[in-house]
Amino acid sequence: MQGKLIVLEGIEGCGKTTQLGYLHRWLRTQPLIQALRGQGQIGDIIITREPGGTPLGGELRQLLLTQTTTTAIAARTELLLYAADRAQHVEEVLSPALARGCLILCDRYVDSTVAYQGYGRGIDLTLIEQLNQIATGGLVPDLTLWLQLGATTGLARSRQRGSIDRMEQADVAFHQRVQQGFEALAAAHPQRIVPVAAAAPVTEVTQQIQTIVMQRLQRWYRPLSPVS
Amino acid sequence: MQGKLIVLEGIEGCGKTTQLGYLHRWLRTQPLIQALRGQGQIGDIIITREPGGTPLGGELRQLLLTQTTTTAIAARTELLLYAADRAQHVEEVLSPALARGCLILCDRYVDSTVAYQGYGRGIDLTLIEQLNQIATGGLVPDLTLWLQLGATTGLARSRQRGSIDRMEQADVAFHQRVQQGFEALAAAHPQRIVPVAAAAPVTEVTQQIQTIVMQRLQRWYRPLSPVS
Ligand SMILES: Nc1ncnc2c1ncn2[C@@H]1O[C@H](COP(=O)(O)OP(=O)(O)O)[C@@H](O)[C@H]1O
Ligand SMILES: Nc1ncnc2c1ncn2[C@@H]1O[C@H](COP(=O)(O)OP(=O)(O)O)[C@@H](O)[C@H]1O
Ligand SMILES: [Mg+2]
Ligand SMILES: [Mg+2]
Repeated sequence: MQGKLIVLEGIEGCGKTTQLGYLHRWLRTQPLIQALRGQGQIGDIIITREPGGTPLGGELRQLLLTQTTTTAIAARTELLLYAADRAQHVEEVLSPALARGCLILCDRYVDSTVAYQGYGRGIDLTLIEQLNQIATGGLVPDLTLWLQLGATTGLARSRQRGSIDRMEQADVAFHQRVQQGFEALAAAHPQRIVPVAAAAPVTEVTQQIQTIVMQRLQRWYRPLSPVS
Repeated sequence: MQGKLIVLEGIEGCGKTTQLGYLHRWLRTQPLIQALRGQGQIGDIIITREPGGTPLGGELRQLLLTQTTTTAIAARTELLLYAADRAQHVEEVLSPALARGCLILCDRYVDSTVAYQGYGRGIDLTLIEQLNQIATGGLVPDLTLWLQLGATTGLARSRQRGSIDRMEQADVAFHQRVQQGFEALAAAHPQRIVPVAAAAPVTEVTQQIQTIVMQRLQRWYRPLSPVS
């Protein structure tokens, strides 16, 4: 059994966490999934995230999102901490779950680092790709859903939500550069990264995602007997 | 003013922390140093260490040396956390101190990562050098004193000291590989890395270090008037 890694990407407030929950519940009710699970072709459907997808990663996430020290975290330090979080997540969660045949739904992965640290903060892209390679050992998502949304709309949404962390205090210009990063990535990897129009109402975004994911599942898996 | 970075390296128990303290106190009493400081040619003499040379690094050091999570820290995660610690240390401590003209005495630096993670744990050396480069931004020590000591003697000494952390629980074979790593590094960088016979009594080791450091200081700096 070989599982699949499905990642949701996009700027703050684009709806990743919301949609991951809906996608998870919806997938469990699908006849195709139930048939594949019954036939032992796939394992559990799990939700995870970066940063913070492991206990160690949780501690690193705290270091990254809250300003605990009096001095600022240097840009290269931040990059390396994200990479450490990712290495642990791949080793402890993603790789074992894929080996068990799980469908993994993951909130952010390598593209976020390229978009935020590379395009947003202006750190050398080659350096970031080197670090992503070191951290993941080469593990690439099977499908990346990019929730496409304007920077101001995303910021307004995440401010309403009430939890303004360090990342969200950064200005709109920063989030616009991040947005451009996701655009460049989507253009460079059209097979892997599928854009989703995330400015639409929640139910419509959910619909788009369901359609894309079902198409992929049908391409990836064949049930042993037809599904009613 | 441009300071100098002097690093002490070697396996657990070789005497780095002991000798750093003696070197620090001795340097402050030297007429050459006092003349150079009086003439504004050098700044303070400071002691620092890796990992854990910054507040953030202190938190990472805790993560690294104590097993806080139920699952093991993956080898690549460990490597990336050491690199993050180093990046922050370079940015927050080493670079600013060098710019202020300080003499920096540092307990471990890049060679420890090559020896422990590369030779000790068998992680790809090219990968480690890549990460050292990313973390340091290219900052190389002006002098590295390698306290050369057999693995069993070092382990015996650090066990007597009473604090057995995760690193010291590893077996003698591991420390012998680490030792070989330091040997290879010293052979590759004979100008920068100077071996010190660390099996000798403390006072003799102190003497050797004083001789080497004074030679270098006389090469690096010239007092404006002769020192009595
Ligand atoms: N399509 C949508 N239209 C309007 N508001 C939305 C939509 N999707 C999510 N939201 C709201 O926007 C906020 C951010 O959504 P969230 O899922 O937390 O985004 P992310 O995880 O990408 O930061 C939440 O308050 C959520 O209820
Ligand atoms: N030259 C020496 N001979 C004997 N014992 C020593 C010598 N140098 C240090 N020690 C003792 O060995 C132990 C480890 O020394 P320490 O300076 O903490 O080493 P490190 O910092 O390299 O791990 C300490 O108990 C110290 O007093
Ligand atoms: Mg979220
Ligand atoms: Mg010590």
